[in-house]
Amino acid sequence: PEAAEIQHLTQQLLDYEVKRDWINYSKLCHPSITGFEPQGHGHMIKGLEFQRFYFETTTTTPHKTLIMDPQVTMLSPESAVIAYVRICQKADTATNTIYSIHSNESRVWKRIAGSWLNIHYHKSNTTKVATP
Amino acid sequence: PEAAEIQHLTQQLLDYEVKRDWINYSKLCHPSITGFEPQGHGHMIKGLEFQRFYFETTTTTPHKTLIMDPQVTMLSPESAVIAYVRICQKADTATNTIYSIHSNESRVWKRIAGSWLNIHYHKSNTTKVATP
Amino acid sequence: PEAAEIQHLTQQLLDYEVKRDWINYSKLCHPSITGFEPQGHGHMIKGLEFQRFYFETTTTTPHKTLIMDPQVTMLSPESAVIAYVRICQKADTATNTIYSIHSNESRVWKRIAGSWLNIHYHKSNTTKVATP
Amino acid sequence: PEAAEIQHLTQQLLDYEVKRDWINYSKLCHPSITGFEPQGHGHMIKGLEFQRFYFETTTTTPHKTLIMDPQVTMLSPESAVIAYVRICQKADTATNTIYSIHSNESRVWKRIAGSWLNIHYHKSNTTKVATP
Amino acid sequence: PEAAEIQHLTQQLLDYEVKRDWINYSKLCHPSITGFEPQGHGHMIKGLEFQRFYFETTTTTPHKTLIMDPQVTMLSPESAVIAYVRICQKADTATNTIYSIHSNESRVWKRIAGSWLNIHYHKSNTTKVATP
Amino acid sequence: PEAAEIQHLTQQLLDYEVKRDWINYSKLCHPSITGFEPQGHGHMIKGLEFQRFYFETTTTTPHKTLIMDPQVTMLSPESAVIAYVRICQKADTATNTIYSIHSNESRVWKRIAGSWLNIHYHKSNTTKVATP
Amino acid sequence: PEAAEIQHLTQQLLDYEVKRDWINYSKLCHPSITGFEPQGHGHMIKGLEFQRFYFETTTTTPHKTLIMDPQVTMLSPESAVIAYVRICQKADTATNTIYSIHSNESRVWKRIAGSWLNIHYHKSNTTKVATP
Amino acid sequence: PEAAEIQHLTQQLLDYEVKRDWINYSKLCHPSITGFEPQGHGHMIKGLEFQRFYFETTTTTPHKTLIMDPQVTMLSPESAVIAYVRICQKADTATNTIYSIHSNESRVWKRIAGSWLNIHYHKSNTTKVATP
Amino acid sequence: PEAAEIQHLTQQLLDYEVKRDWINYSKLCHPSITGFEPQGHGHMIKGLEFQRFYFETTTTTPHKTLIMDPQVTMLSPESAVIAYVRICQKADTATNTIYSIHSNESRVWKRIAGSWLNIHYHKSNTTKVATP
Amino acid sequence: PEAAEIQHLTQQLLDYEVKRDWINYSKLCHPSITGFEPQGHGHMIKGLEFQRFYFETTTTTPHKTLIMDPQVTMLSPESAVIAYVRICQKADTATNTIYSIHSNESRVWKRIAGSWLNIHYHKSNTTKVATP
Amino acid sequence: PEAAEIQHLTQQLLDYEVKRDWINYSKLCHPSITGFEPQGHGHMIKGLEFQRFYFETTTTTPHKTLIMDPQVTMLSPESAVIAYVRICQKADTATNTIYSIHSNESRVWKRIAGSWLNIHYHKSNTTKVATP
Amino acid sequence: PEAAEIQHLTQQLLDYEVKRDWINYSKLCHPSITGFEPQGHGHMIKGLEFQRFYFETTTTTPHKTLIMDPQVTMLSPESAVIAYVRICQKADTATNTIYSIHSNESRVWKRIAGSWLNIHYHKSNTTKVATP
Repeated sequence: PEAAEIQHLTQQLLDYEVKRDWINYSKLCHPSITGFEPQGHGHMIKGLEFQRFYFETTTTTPHKTLIMDPQVTMLSPESAVIAYVRICQKADTATNTIYSIHSNESRVWKRIAGSWLNIHYHKSNTTKVATP
Repeated sequence: PEAAEIQHLTQQLLDYEVKRDWINYSKLCHPSITGFEPQGHGHMIKGLEFQRFYFETTTTTPHKTLIMDPQVTMLSPESAVIAYVRICQKADTATNTIYSIHSNESRVWKRIAGSWLNIHYHKSNTTKVATP
Repeated sequence: PEAAEIQHLTQQLLDYEVKRDWINYSKLCHPSITGFEPQGHGHMIKGLEFQRFYFETTTTTPHKTLIMDPQVTMLSPESAVIAYVRICQKADTATNTIYSIHSNESRVWKRIAGSWLNIHYHKSNTTKVATP
Repeated sequence: PEAAEIQHLTQQLLDYEVKRDWINYSKLCHPSITGFEPQGHGHMIKGLEFQRFYFETTTTTPHKTLIMDPQVTMLSPESAVIAYVRICQKADTATNTIYSIHSNESRVWKRIAGSWLNIHYHKSNTTKVATP
Repeated sequence: PEAAEIQHLTQQLLDYEVKRDWINYSKLCHPSITGFEPQGHGHMIKGLEFQRFYFETTTTTPHKTLIMDPQVTMLSPESAVIAYVRICQKADTATNTIYSIHSNESRVWKRIAGSWLNIHYHKSNTTKVATP
Repeated sequence: PEAAEIQHLTQQLLDYEVKRDWINYSKLCHPSITGFEPQGHGHMIKGLEFQRFYFETTTTTPHKTLIMDPQVTMLSPESAVIAYVRICQKADTATNTIYSIHSNESRVWKRIAGSWLNIHYHKSNTTKVATP
Repeated sequence: PEAAEIQHLTQQLLDYEVKRDWINYSKLCHPSITGFEPQGHGHMIKGLEFQRFYFETTTTTPHKTLIMDPQVTMLSPESAVIAYVRICQKADTATNTIYSIHSNESRVWKRIAGSWLNIHYHKSNTTKVATP
Repeated sequence: PEAAEIQHLTQQLLDYEVKRDWINYSKLCHPSITGFEPQGHGHMIKGLEFQRFYFETTTTTPHKTLIMDPQVTMLSPESAVIAYVRICQKADTATNTIYSIHSNESRVWKRIAGSWLNIHYHKSNTTKVATP
Repeated sequence: PEAAEIQHLTQQLLDYEVKRDWINYSKLCHPSITGFEPQGHGHMIKGLEFQRFYFETTTTTPHKTLIMDPQVTMLSPESAVIAYVRICQKADTATNTIYSIHSNESRVWKRIAGSWLNIHYHKSNTTKVATP
Repeated sequence: PEAAEIQHLTQQLLDYEVKRDWINYSKLCHPSITGFEPQGHGHMIKGLEFQRFYFETTTTTPHKTLIMDPQVTMLSPESAVIAYVRICQKADTATNTIYSIHSNESRVWKRIAGSWLNIHYHKSNTTKVATP
Repeated sequence: PEAAEIQHLTQQLLDYEVKRDWINYSKLCHPSITGFEPQGHGHMIKGLEFQRFYFETTTTTPHKTLIMDPQVTMLSPESAVIAYVRICQKADTATNTIYSIHSNESRVWKRIAGSWLNIHYHKSNTTKVATP
Repeated sequence: PEAAEIQHLTQQLLDYEVKRDWINYSKLCHPSITGFEPQGHGHMIKGLEFQRFYFETTTTTPHKTLIMDPQVTMLSPESAVIAYVRICQKADTATNTIYSIHSNESRVWKRIAGSWLNIHYHKSNTTKVATP
């Protein structure tokens, strides 16, 4: 059940990102969150300011985010790690093209004062394919 | 005769995809269909949600789908596999160009309650050529 | 004289293609024509449907088709093979550019009921050069 | 249980390939096996002669073959399809390098006279990574 | 039956090439044979001297030549055209690698004084794949 | 202090990898360890078999492994996550060249029966630079 | 405290650059400032004229500048060096894309007549990543 | 005079590197030296361990190191920064080739207890040219 | 004097090409002119039809044609060969860019009935440079 | 003082080029000026016609030309050579981008009838960098 | 007949080049021969010294030179131009590979004191194909 | 005559370089010679030390240096500039290959105490072609 909750929270987090819903997205993140991602150029991102820029300067487009092969490991009653393959389908209606964007993600969650918060993430192996 | 029916159903399936006819397309697919295709980035696609995104966000353009060198093998009276070369001709009227798109496809069909359903597919080797 | 006729028919066939004149083009082709060409991605094209798509979806543009170094061999009074270099000059008036497109072609002709029909073709080595 | 048997047979098939054990490998294949694979250049391979050349002209090297995310679907009591990710680890002892080779595979099995035989395969998306 | 003979002669021709057996190879070719092939750089090869250089300066290596999807058309009782996909498997025992080499070929045959002779060929679309 | 222990264990783990010391390396890993790394081609590695192949088929060469900017977060008294930049210096004495290999790593540790075990890892962004 | 001041001044300098505020930017620079940067093509830039051109001919766009891993070393009470990773996030609202631009910077500061002035800089390793 | 001393010490430092003289090289460096260089992949190198690996695992080859366009700025009587272009000429006697390797360097020096020590460096823009 | 005339006629020929003056251009060419040029893809161009297509389908743009290092050799009182470097300067006013286009040309002239006619040309080594 | 004059005249020459001021530019050049530059494709440019085309067909855009590291050598009271690094900063206001264009230049000046004239130039190593 | 002689002399010239027979090769060339060829980098080669270097420093290897589509034009009784496609077949016996090397050549001949001498040549469009 | 002497001295200088004759080469150079060349990576080379490294660490190989299209301008009785195209032919006897290496060079000469000395050089546009 807790594993299911972790997976559910992760799916919510990604959906808030798609919808550019900063209020709910940021509620699921620890203020001291750390992470590795391609936009960090090999450096660890610390805190929420980096992500916030995305929500503030770009808008949502029609797309869907899939979590594939999720693997949840409970580390303690108050902590867990989830690893999964993420595939985003994105439609460019102007050119009638679908893009499929793939990455590998690990997310570490910690329950603080009853709320699960994402405290570390690692996103890698981002590749992109277009319909021919 | 059953082999001919399998080939006919496969042709229908591809034509529904061209016409973006989701209702008929999805009737020919098992809800638990699995598949490998370039958009899956090496991961198996499970279920129909992935395909549905294509039908909902892009529109049809003038093109024709050819099945070449089809090979149907009846595995039992209620199951079959068809393998073939697929070539799509697509016209870009804006640039007066024809694209020819090639792939290899295998599709496994199973008859359930009298209806043949596509239960697995494998699409690979997608290449594209334009008229010079 | 028959060699000259074969060359003349071949020139006509290419000119009908340039003018997008399907009625006359298809009259010169055997309904079971086979062929190799870049758009076939290594597979043999069978029948006229493949070519027809070109005539129906694109329009003609100012260009000229040259047959260079033609070599006609009469195989019997009713059959012949012609091999030649084909160079198409194509003008893109928007960019004031001329494209020269080269290929090697072999075409096999057979006289059936008094009419010469193209029954096999092989087109390869397509390269393109633009005026600098 | 039959699903497990199919997976077991698939693992055996791949291991015989690694060991270059043609006698056991060919016993698991239908003489009319068909397949798509990169070495076919987009054409369907038919029969066992194509594979046999590999066994006869190359030798085995230290490596391991992993089946990941296998998905077995029983099509009838006598037929099944298995789809999986295949990763081969190969050691080049001369350069002290490990290669990891990835592909997607689907294999269709049919039981004939009590023996399961591989009757169709589709192998795609072959990529290779070396230890840096 | 004649179609079968044409296919058989074509297979022989390719096998003589593999074995570097010039005497038998040249007996199957018309002295005025013409052809297009990649080594001609877009120009028509005329006569047998061009091929002979290959037989005289290179030696045979273990490989196998497959004719796939052959299509024979009798043009008259004394002439025929065969078109097919050719795949050569070649083993490089030094590096323990298999190469698979693909091309499209059309060959025109004419019976002269009772013997079938290859009078024109067109070889294109040569691609090469190595085992990873 | 526990953060320091986590960092110390991580350094040990990497050093055992350099020394190809499988016995000690595997003692620090949970048998059900999961991970993402370039050799997985986007798929999650499960269990220790994958790593073991490296230890068994390659040998150690002179190099040094640095942990830079480590960030340890205690998730509970029995679980932690460490994220860091890893730089390996590797000498190729034959060519008198130094290679510097960079990656980003996250490792999740869990204390089971008093022993800290690595239960998940994520390695990405591997780049390589040679001395000019 | 002085280290903090140096870091604060560096952040100000970068923010003035983002805002294209030449008056304040130039007040923080020594008139004889020297520097290496990609726009210098390997040559040392001397004086402020080179930078001024940027402020005068381009305008500001929505972006944010992060200083990561700053390292301040006081060289004397009146001089210091700061080294850090700089990541700029830049939004291209036309294409709904975020660019993340990375560089390494070292800046040498000297206090003259009570004011800290940047007297040398070195900027390198500029890489750019776009959201996929 | 002090500027000249700084330049002289810098030349010495580079010559010790060429000669692989670790004892003298390390005497000129502060134990807490920091630096950016290509081998750091965008991360700051801290301390002397990183450099030491070079001295221990590679040997010297015939080459010469030039300091071009040096610019020394005294920051205080006890601190200075030098910036210059560095060109290394390296001979590969096996291939009878000369390599010319270019980089931009800034080095910050501090006098501690009477001895000048290099406390920060920044090396960038490394390019390599061979004699044709 | 005749050498000067040949050079003068060559310059005229090139100027007529720039001005798209077909009437005067064709008066300077032998009706059976032959030539090699990039647009011929390695085949010899015969006659004037090929060039005429350029004059009829494109228009002139501001540019200048230079003959550099001309070398005229009188072969007989009625025949000559001129070889030279040709550089065309072409202005693209839309992008405020100048293109410089280089080629090597040899032209053979023959006096027939008192008029010098260009009877063979060879144009090669076409390269293009834009102002940065 | 003469060295200063040579440098001043060189700066003027480059500024006239930026401003497209042909009258003053050409007054500083010897009518028989020779030069090597990328637009010459390896051939020596002779005379002023080549440059004039630039002035007549393109217009000025906001940019600045820097002379770096100038080295003037008086060859006689009436002749001198100047060598320097030239960096042009060019603003593309449409895309809000700055381009920095680098080249190496040598210019030989000769005083004739009291006026210094540029009689030879050599421009090379042109590279271009854009703001990221 | 003279056309045949010109073609014969051209074939001899090429054969002497293959055999590295300088004495006979140079007898067929005018001492002031001019030419364009790839090794001239766009500059005209003048005299025989350039070619002689080839004969003196390299040795012959098994190969054959074909003249295809020759076109001879008599310019006067004492002068002629020949244009043709040249294909060289070259065997690399070490790798068991055949190379086919293509170029376009024009050669101008002049009879002086009864002997035909090559006085100008233009060689271009050199491409190379290896057996796969 | 002086122009001829300048050209002769230049040819000598290049020949001494080929023969690796440092004593005579350095006698023809001013000790304060300056120059631009590819090995300088855009920086001016000053003095003779840079060249000397070439003479000391590499050996001569069979090659020839041609001066093409030389242009000598006397700047005063005691100074001159020569500009020319330089083509080096170099034989690699191991691979039976000829390399032709091209560059543009300007050299400024000054007569001091009766001896002509090279006081500045500019070498650019180095390209290399191998016999196919």
